[in-house]
Amino acid sequence: MNNFEFFNPTRIVFGEGEISRLSSLVPEKARVLVLFGGESARKFGTLDEVKAALGDRHVSFFGGVEANPKYETLLNAIAQVKDENIDFLIAVGGGSVIDGTKFVAAASRYPSEPMQMLKKAGSDLKEAIPFGAVLTLSATGSEMNKISVITYAAAKAKMAFFSETVFPQFSILDPVKTFTLPPRQIGNGIVDAFIHVTEQYLTYPVNAKIQDRFAEGILQTLVEEGPKTVEQPDNYEVRSNLMWAASQALNGLIGVGVPHDWATHMIGHELTALYGLDHAQTLAVVLPSLLEEKQQQKQSKLAQFAERVWGVQQGSEAEKAAQAISLTREFFESVGVKTRLSDYQLDETCIDPLIKHLSDHGMTRLGEHRDIDLDACRRILQRSL
Amino acid sequence: MNNFEFFNPTRIVFGEGEISRLSSLVPEKARVLVLFGGESARKFGTLDEVKAALGDRHVSFFGGVEANPKYETLLNAIAQVKDENIDFLIAVGGGSVIDGTKFVAAASRYPSEPMQMLKKAGSDLKEAIPFGAVLTLSATGSEMNKISVITYAAAKAKMAFFSETVFPQFSILDPVKTFTLPPRQIGNGIVDAFIHVTEQYLTYPVNAKIQDRFAEGILQTLVEEGPKTVEQPDNYEVRSNLMWAASQALNGLIGVGVPHDWATHMIGHELTALYGLDHAQTLAVVLPSLLEEKQQQKQSKLAQFAERVWGVQQGSEAEKAAQAISLTREFFESVGVKTRLSDYQLDETCIDPLIKHLSDHGMTRLGEHRDIDLDACRRILQRSL
Repeated sequence: MNNFEFFNPTRIVFGEGEISRLSSLVPEKARVLVLFGGESARKFGTLDEVKAALGDRHVSFFGGVEANPKYETLLNAIAQVKDENIDFLIAVGGGSVIDGTKFVAAASRYPSEPMQMLKKAGSDLKEAIPFGAVLTLSATGSEMNKISVITYAAAKAKMAFFSETVFPQFSILDPVKTFTLPPRQIGNGIVDAFIHVTEQYLTYPVNAKIQDRFAEGILQTLVEEGPKTVEQPDNYEVRSNLMWAASQALNGLIGVGVPHDWATHMIGHELTALYGLDHAQTLAVVLPSLLEEKQQQKQSKLAQFAERVWGVQQGSEAEKAAQAISLTREFFESVGVKTRLSDYQLDETCIDPLIKHLSDHGMTRLGEHRDIDLDACRRILQRSL
Repeated sequence: MNNFEFFNPTRIVFGEGEISRLSSLVPEKARVLVLFGGESARKFGTLDEVKAALGDRHVSFFGGVEANPKYETLLNAIAQVKDENIDFLIAVGGGSVIDGTKFVAAASRYPSEPMQMLKKAGSDLKEAIPFGAVLTLSATGSEMNKISVITYAAAKAKMAFFSETVFPQFSILDPVKTFTLPPRQIGNGIVDAFIHVTEQYLTYPVNAKIQDRFAEGILQTLVEEGPKTVEQPDNYEVRSNLMWAASQALNGLIGVGVPHDWATHMIGHELTALYGLDHAQTLAVVLPSLLEEKQQQKQSKLAQFAERVWGVQQGSEAEKAAQAISLTREFFESVGVKTRLSDYQLDETCIDPLIKHLSDHGMTRLGEHRDIDLDACRRILQRSL
């Protein structure tokens, strides 16, 4: 395996009823801003629970952080932070709210314009407002990592930043809080977590046995629990396993010392920015086609994936690899996430604008070998029609 | 799965040549005490490398931290810390040196007698001197956890303490530094890591799928790489996998939300204290007998262990469980660690003193069901003759 550094100081508090722990997790004198998305956090009582646990502390709210959280929206939260002398943030929601909160935490303490921070991808961040998260949707892993992706709506661009200053101080994971999610969000979450793993696993072998086994363990868990969690929304055990799997998928652990791909995400980001597909829908569309396009290069890991995750024991390495790709596509469909551009009313006329956006954003050498150029992206998208 | 909390802020820096990173990992103005064990750290140049990486900083050394580090020895290190106004510690060695360093770090800042801190098992620790580790022996996982076990030689007792204040700030894991270890220490390390996993895995099922898969992934890696690392001491890839497996075995991750056993360790500690067996030797002697004694109670997880780790697909659940126990014993022997008391020149006359020690130390209700009483301990030891 390759040399690596691993660091993840986020405290995870997991299980039913743990929102009450906020009373001890948040500093006693903190002035708190609670960020959330739509009205479900209020409707299902989570905001009230959070407020109650915070006791006498100053607590304000900032609602309306949208999926693919917008730079333009979050500037308003930064203004509120400054107006009210806020010194602690709590994100109540899924990955979008947490990503947005990371941006607010960092930009509020950044000495220049927030856009500068994004353009530098967080590389010169020195500090951020401390914050925690109350997770209500398992998918992105943002609750346990230092990554944030912000959408700059004016330019239809997704911009990621990374910094140790934006690890959540804590994240509370109560599986019960995910019972009320609509099936579309559950399916999306399963696909998102699954593809976070494949981006770090389906590359080429470097004999990193622990990382491979852990990645396969997460994938096996998603395959076993995914369909059950769609069918049985209030099955606590199933939701627990799904929730912990999603956090492990992108907390850094399975990605240490191994090559990374991430081409599926880069292509997918443009599909969201231009055509408004859900993040996970874009991944489900791109991944199977990308694996077909790169089947030969990825064959060794694809065959291992076939054997260990899908239990495919028969056939040549090439046959196993092909079968694994088919099974992956079927799995996404089985949790309700469609895998063809045509399923989202897109035809081949969508491809030129996507390629132009990829080119404009410098996405011309993607994948673990940096050999997925714009021609390869075009072939991948054509396979996805 | 059960509710849990997970927190692990230790920074891991992994790979060949990474000792040079000390120059940036240790504060610039630090006054450093480097703790080490025997002369191998000096002989193989590791101490020189550490000193060189620390540049102009004040650096002192404290050698002679023994296996099963002694309270009495470590008091001298605490005196040196105070004499020299030391404010940063570096452990160079394996689990014993790191455990000892944790004790020195905590006791040096503890307002009462160090023995008080141990008697309270670290529960009232408020701070410790910050420290890092340079690992030269993979086994205990101490490089990435908050656990320390100290031997109070005067009472022939092992005393553990636990505190978030004694997480290493960083640990440097360079597999090359383990090439020179004698086979006995390599075998011991493999067994130690293996049994750290089984203590958290071979209990009863709570449907914690990620924890189970990760535990099995570590065990599979140890089974695959263990014999190779004994045979090929300078195989970098094999040592890398072993090293990362051992850290993952006891960094808290596989133990969250699941029942724990630890009876093997508690019985084993008395074998070391009374008869001087290596820690891993005691575990290899106790575990197979304990699993036989508790086979029925643990049968479901034993059968899963048989299937997933040992590839046993034939037979009833009971037969699979029995086969897994046999294969485990054979595995320990295959890496050079004997599994019978008679292999260590002990006969049944050793048992009464062990039972008395267990009783004196309050070890009368061990295991995940708290039902391993002194009679059960006796039966386990008799099976181990």
